[in-house]
Amino acid sequence: MKQFRLNQQEAYAVLNNLSNRFKRSSEYHLKHLIQEDDRFHRFSLSMDRFFYDFSKQRLDADVKQALIDLAKQTRARQWFSKMVNGERINCTEDRAVLHTATRDMSRNKLDLDGTNILKQLRQVNEKIGAFSHQVHSGAVCSTTGKAFSDAVIVGIGGSYLGCEFVYQAMSYSMDPKIKLHFLPNVDIDNFGQVIKQIQPETCMWVVISKSYTTTETMANLNQVLAFLDSNGLKPDDHLVTITAKGSPGDNPDNPVLASFHMFDFIGGRYSVSSAVGGLPLSLSFGFESFNRFLSGCHQMDQHALNQPEATNIPLTAALIAVWNSNFLNYPTQGIIPYASALSKLAPHFQQLNMESLGKTVTRDGKTIGYPTGSIIFGEPGTNAQHSFFQLAHQGSPFPIDFIGIVRPVFTNKQVKSKGVYNHQELWANMIAQARALAVGKDDPDPAKSFTGNRPSSTILINDVSPKSIGMLLSFYEARTVYEGFLLGVNPFDQFGVQLGKVLAAKIRREMEAKNRDANLGFDIPDPATRFYLDTLFKGEL
Amino acid sequence: MKQFRLNQQEAYAVLNNLSNRFKRSSEYHLKHLIQEDDRFHRFSLSMDRFFYDFSKQRLDADVKQALIDLAKQTRARQWFSKMVNGERINCTEDRAVLHTATRDMSRNKLDLDGTNILKQLRQVNEKIGAFSHQVHSGAVCSTTGKAFSDAVIVGIGGSYLGCEFVYQAMSYSMDPKIKLHFLPNVDIDNFGQVIKQIQPETCMWVVISKSYTTTETMANLNQVLAFLDSNGLKPDDHLVTITAKGSPGDNPDNPVLASFHMFDFIGGRYSVSSAVGGLPLSLSFGFESFNRFLSGCHQMDQHALNQPEATNIPLTAALIAVWNSNFLNYPTQGIIPYASALSKLAPHFQQLNMESLGKTVTRDGKTIGYPTGSIIFGEPGTNAQHSFFQLAHQGSPFPIDFIGIVRPVFTNKQVKSKGVYNHQELWANMIAQARALAVGKDDPDPAKSFTGNRPSSTILINDVSPKSIGMLLSFYEARTVYEGFLLGVNPFDQFGVQLGKVLAAKIRREMEAKNRDANLGFDIPDPATRFYLDTLFKGEL
Repeated sequence: MKQFRLNQQEAYAVLNNLSNRFKRSSEYHLKHLIQEDDRFHRFSLSMDRFFYDFSKQRLDADVKQALIDLAKQTRARQWFSKMVNGERINCTEDRAVLHTATRDMSRNKLDLDGTNILKQLRQVNEKIGAFSHQVHSGAVCSTTGKAFSDAVIVGIGGSYLGCEFVYQAMSYSMDPKIKLHFLPNVDIDNFGQVIKQIQPETCMWVVISKSYTTTETMANLNQVLAFLDSNGLKPDDHLVTITAKGSPGDNPDNPVLASFHMFDFIGGRYSVSSAVGGLPLSLSFGFESFNRFLSGCHQMDQHALNQPEATNIPLTAALIAVWNSNFLNYPTQGIIPYASALSKLAPHFQQLNMESLGKTVTRDGKTIGYPTGSIIFGEPGTNAQHSFFQLAHQGSPFPIDFIGIVRPVFTNKQVKSKGVYNHQELWANMIAQARALAVGKDDPDPAKSFTGNRPSSTILINDVSPKSIGMLLSFYEARTVYEGFLLGVNPFDQFGVQLGKVLAAKIRREMEAKNRDANLGFDIPDPATRFYLDTLFKGEL
Repeated sequence: MKQFRLNQQEAYAVLNNLSNRFKRSSEYHLKHLIQEDDRFHRFSLSMDRFFYDFSKQRLDADVKQALIDLAKQTRARQWFSKMVNGERINCTEDRAVLHTATRDMSRNKLDLDGTNILKQLRQVNEKIGAFSHQVHSGAVCSTTGKAFSDAVIVGIGGSYLGCEFVYQAMSYSMDPKIKLHFLPNVDIDNFGQVIKQIQPETCMWVVISKSYTTTETMANLNQVLAFLDSNGLKPDDHLVTITAKGSPGDNPDNPVLASFHMFDFIGGRYSVSSAVGGLPLSLSFGFESFNRFLSGCHQMDQHALNQPEATNIPLTAALIAVWNSNFLNYPTQGIIPYASALSKLAPHFQQLNMESLGKTVTRDGKTIGYPTGSIIFGEPGTNAQHSFFQLAHQGSPFPIDFIGIVRPVFTNKQVKSKGVYNHQELWANMIAQARALAVGKDDPDPAKSFTGNRPSSTILINDVSPKSIGMLLSFYEARTVYEGFLLGVNPFDQFGVQLGKVLAAKIRREMEAKNRDANLGFDIPDPATRFYLDTLFKGEL
């Protein structure tokens, strides 16, 4: 079989030629492009309550067509369809990739190795619904009979970043029934800070790890077990696990309050719509809200699956990301939601996108010779305007996703300033920034000159309802996997994190030996490592 | 006077030549460089309880010497000295730059235009000390006679990011007497979320704006005034301002509970050690803690001012930043503190560095032809390892600052996992990551191969005490201004944010007209802008 390379596709050469227009000719400056009458309508896409404007990206009709050709030549939509239908497209780990199945409301059967996994996933969800209802009613309560008020999510990376994003967004429109806290870091001060914020008697601990061997999570679990014990509380009243069937966290010899299954066909960074997000979000906002969130995810999944290349929003966003990184050579991407409620979107997408695409090999295992993966960062606007937008306007340019929410949550009494309400002021800024970055401004004084030609997209969602948040989450998931299909990498593995683990284990063994016998020296030739270990064990600089 | 250009310095050409070694010769791969016996000692610097290891940066003794030459040729230390002594080095705004004066404990007199500004600054601090003491004692209390429990900081950009970083860091080791909340964003949902977290009767509002005209801050002030009024509370009991003398926020016709001065010789992003951070931090942790923080800042200032090039830590860090961005062509920089307490360092430094250096003109006002300003981003480790470190190891490389804290705050009962305590596990990871990125690992399978040669520095501070946090803050301030001096830009202005403000004002005027007369159409030729305004006023997508 012919091995895949992005740069061996016919459209690649076409795009490479076209990129010269944009790099060399002032005619193709955005300030000219956006003057075209029908540009906004030709370079924007919408679906039910989701709007995507790419008219301020540095492209024209020729580029758009070549990108569509690229999508066809790379068979991006076929790959997406394979994914949704359970083919083992995570080739390096020989796994199916079925986060879309967790919210698939269009069918009732999807076989994987003879098991109907839709049934399996729905059983988990029913259990989540029943359990969260029992917690809210008080039927499930603490060792001392008190109702639960707080839950601490003990999990790292994909086991909390997506959940944290959705939890924070939803908490703007709904008061949580159970307040969530996050304990990802092995840093003991993360633990110390969390236990200041909860009451032991009314706190549930939700340990999330597929293998139940993640070093950080297991270390924190041990602190939690000691903490429960010292407070006279029992794990079988206070501990919940979300883990793979048969893992040490699913062992009846270690009784827990409840255990929910996660599956090897859903990767951590794509797991928000599985039990990983489902249980915490149902505890916080009720199972019904979680289902509305799933329906938003599913609506976007269907769009991503069924829309042809030219009208497919996540695929278009992925094509633009590839155009920006591989042809216009932007190494970074800003995520700027004009919404405080979405302030954890950037850290979530940072993991989702960078861990999926920051690879050196194709899915065939061969070294790649073109850029894969951008650096993703961002803060909410208008805050970002008062932070790093100086550089966005006058330093090295980077493409931006602006995200606007049509309806704010707060509708109580408001006053106008300068004749407008705050939400209007917020939008005035969002609109103005995208335009200012695109058009720039000439000035005889170089200090007051703005080169412009800085690309952005603008995404609108209707509100921060669970459904809208679901659409936004699924949009960024689909954009990421589409980018992976276009680049020809496997967006579902993460072998790049192995080396650090191996070296940490060596250092841990030295520490362990010294913990057992304080008189031991460190058997480490590297002077830097020895210095750090000496300093740590001395306890001061 | 000859105009300054980094690339016209003698050392520039030397560095440019030297960079070829590192780009082309495998001999200069970090895996070889760090084998040298004395490398760690030759490429690390320390001062009292602050340690800086740059042995894993891609440089050698020749580069180090050429960088020192560059510092001398650009007169970086003379510029720093001019700054500390009150020369008007913010040339575009004709202002002195005296954030170091807010913590200058070495002298009693520093004249600026005939005023001893040290006396002036100390008077502000005395007032902060007295006021915060009165709040803690209950002598200053709410309209209804209750003691204050919370304070909301109403300010954006430099008026909150630094304070938020220090507040969060200190809150790990001390329980705040007054809990802080932050209301930067004009987003009405930011306001809506904040008022859910406070009790009106026991909440103080601290409005921070030098000019008292910042659009977002004034819009939020108006919401706050309406909120106080609707709760039967008076601004002269609940509102505090930090603003320039004579601004509308310092007008006796609008009585407030207290008002503290800020000065035009301290820019927002450098203002944490002024009243901008001083009042909130003194309210939270006591004036004594704030003073210990200042002493840490001052200690680093003295080091940055007095140490020669070869042993000056912030200057060395700035030289390495310039080496990485301008010679080795890295466009980004990661900030990875292995400490939850420092989780707001990256957003603070993001503003500090990107707004200071993301410029297109030299301080002489001429267009620059070399990179200025990197994109700064980061999350705490080990969280970052489970997020974007896949890309750090196998995608496009970026330099990293690792930051370790020798002593954690939490010292209560802990259990070991895999034979080590959590804090040890944290350090095992920090040490391992820096090494893994540097050395990499060859493997016949490209998917398991790590190219290595990825640079990092490691910074150690002793603890999260106010003094240590002060040193760290001042280190990053000094590093940033030194980078500005080396690059020849003015790190103290931010004219790049003007264009967006002008365009936002135009859009605001359209909104205002429509608010007055709903029948009005929008007088805007751009179809995109019209669509956004229509959607906003319709209130749904």
